[in-house]
Amino acid sequence: MMEKTFVLAPDSFKESMTAREVCIAMEKGLRKVYPQAKYIHVPMADGGEGTVQSLVDASGGTLYEKEVTGPLGQPVKAQFGILGDGVTAAIEMASASGIHLVTKETKNPLITTTYGTGELIAECLDRGVQQIIIGIGGSATNDGGAGMAEALGVEFLDSEGKSIPRGGGGLDKLATIDVSRLDPRLQEVNLIVASDVTNPLCGEHGASRVFGPQKGATPEMVLQLDNNLAHYAKVIQQQLGKDVRDYPGAGAAGGLGAGLLTFTRSTMQKGIEIVIEHTDLKNKLAEADYVFTGEGGIDFQTKFGKTPYGVAQAAKQLGKKVIAVAGYIGEGIDTLYDEGIDAVFGIVPGAADLEKVLAEGAQNVERTCENIGRLIALSSK
Amino acid sequence: MMEKTFVLAPDSFKESMTAREVCIAMEKGLRKVYPQAKYIHVPMADGGEGTVQSLVDASGGTLYEKEVTGPLGQPVKAQFGILGDGVTAAIEMASASGIHLVTKETKNPLITTTYGTGELIAECLDRGVQQIIIGIGGSATNDGGAGMAEALGVEFLDSEGKSIPRGGGGLDKLATIDVSRLDPRLQEVNLIVASDVTNPLCGEHGASRVFGPQKGATPEMVLQLDNNLAHYAKVIQQQLGKDVRDYPGAGAAGGLGAGLLTFTRSTMQKGIEIVIEHTDLKNKLAEADYVFTGEGGIDFQTKFGKTPYGVAQAAKQLGKKVIAVAGYIGEGIDTLYDEGIDAVFGIVPGAADLEKVLAEGAQNVERTCENIGRLIALSSK
Repeated sequence: MMEKTFVLAPDSFKESMTAREVCIAMEKGLRKVYPQAKYIHVPMADGGEGTVQSLVDASGGTLYEKEVTGPLGQPVKAQFGILGDGVTAAIEMASASGIHLVTKETKNPLITTTYGTGELIAECLDRGVQQIIIGIGGSATNDGGAGMAEALGVEFLDSEGKSIPRGGGGLDKLATIDVSRLDPRLQEVNLIVASDVTNPLCGEHGASRVFGPQKGATPEMVLQLDNNLAHYAKVIQQQLGKDVRDYPGAGAAGGLGAGLLTFTRSTMQKGIEIVIEHTDLKNKLAEADYVFTGEGGIDFQTKFGKTPYGVAQAAKQLGKKVIAVAGYIGEGIDTLYDEGIDAVFGIVPGAADLEKVLAEGAQNVERTCENIGRLIALSSK
Repeated sequence: MMEKTFVLAPDSFKESMTAREVCIAMEKGLRKVYPQAKYIHVPMADGGEGTVQSLVDASGGTLYEKEVTGPLGQPVKAQFGILGDGVTAAIEMASASGIHLVTKETKNPLITTTYGTGELIAECLDRGVQQIIIGIGGSATNDGGAGMAEALGVEFLDSEGKSIPRGGGGLDKLATIDVSRLDPRLQEVNLIVASDVTNPLCGEHGASRVFGPQKGATPEMVLQLDNNLAHYAKVIQQQLGKDVRDYPGAGAAGGLGAGLLTFTRSTMQKGIEIVIEHTDLKNKLAEADYVFTGEGGIDFQTKFGKTPYGVAQAAKQLGKKVIAVAGYIGEGIDTLYDEGIDAVFGIVPGAADLEKVLAEGAQNVERTCENIGRLIALSSK
């Protein structure tokens, strides 16, 4: 038998395993059937939670931690990564300014700030990187990225020349944006913004109306926040000559999209595409006999930019066979068969509560992949 | 592509699907991938619960119901089957005298009786069958099969010539066994007793000590029951010349094994072997490209006479490929790979409570088998 090459390109299984741990479990299972095969690990992500970890793991980079300003001004320990190339950084805005850093009681988009995200960007600049990948999902904020910009030297002043308060609630006081002290290193660094959100900054489909409520905004607050972002966009346009208001993705992460587009050299791209590029996935796929992917959950939504879909699409271009495993299989997975995922298997061994399932993820991935390997070997006979 | 033949030979998934329903779900899933394939359904069982249903379904027979005497003397509706050949009946003793027919409060092996099982046998005799397959698992009784024999005409008398009370507690009064009115048709009919239990009637490994407690016997009752069965065996030996006391399996079903061996033309056989024989499984397997089996749960115990093991052993003799699916995968399934089960897949799509898992069994089997089919097709390329 010709020895096979397996490319293992799963996302993390949220709250259970990092993508790298999934790769290891997959290999352990398959290796029982194919001990001599070649296993190429490509821990993946889709721009959401786990993206920094996966990019670091896939590239042989390093994970760092820095204390920054949390969404409510509290100190938080945020992670960021320097990839194996030494010149690319990776950030998740949620690590500094995420919804998980506020509670049901304290969440309040009038005051939450992206300041900490700006501090993380500054830290990357200090480390001399040439580009920064930034995932902007899971924010607690609605400040248009003003906090982020402030941390990088921009001043947001009211009509009396005083700094306006941080948070989405203070933007109505904005009279002047002073970019004279904006960190000049930002001119030399590309920010690659991972966002699957195409919402504009304001209006019916804008940040405040669509995402404000889940960040704690009451209906009254939603109107206030939306008006404030509209005012913010107007001032940007008038004083900086940039029209970001209706740019697709400007409304991502409470308008952090708009802020990044305004104050940094940013391009927006789908998260999964960025990860595919920066993990060199396509070149690795070229070698594969079988591609294994997976995620904590797979269902009809997987098509909308999730890792197993992205991996399958890339693999299909090369005519590769793709098998997915998942901790949870939801409705509509048959729609994935046409999209390049050849087969999907659940890993859960029987009725069990979520806690147990999350705790036993690795052994379940291992056993399932062993049996998939056994079936491949059996069917190849 | 040469069209494939799939032999589908699962057990029932207890409390979720009959074996026939599992076959249907398996075919539904596989047919999406192999619409032109040949599907041979062989609903299986191992002599335990579901055996009558499976034998009836596999042979194209008929299921009947008869009101008989329950273990506590209460009327119960018991099922039995006439197989497709018209001359073979199938009974489960539990249907008439099973532990599920008593409650935690009412279970009492001093008084529970196998009388209803004898009535079921009599009913089969009335229908003119030539052989009776009888599964004897799950009993509520410890009466040595005396109740069963009584229903078929045997009289169990005390020293004053009066009938002794029914149940394991009355056997110490037994002085005389009168078989003069035993149903003469039993001489013409073979009973094939499905039992995986090899315990003797009495003593350390006997019916009372090993199985008595789970039927409600206190330690004192266990001693009394064991003594009573020893007395029963002694009277049988003295008056009927049969030594059943230490016969392997005499202790099955509270000594019903001994009663059947004494009063009927019985042979004992492993449940799965009987089912394999009476479903004509081996001839059907000969055609198979792939054999699918399965059971509600698969684990290290599957080796001890469970359906997936029996099917795999029979299939391996013919060099067939065997895939198993299960609602629950437990410890030690790797020991099954050497025994002919090539691969095992769980059907549960994610963390879920038992109730949901049981309710959604069919769709889970269907989805899993579809994906197994997809992987077979993929790997055969």
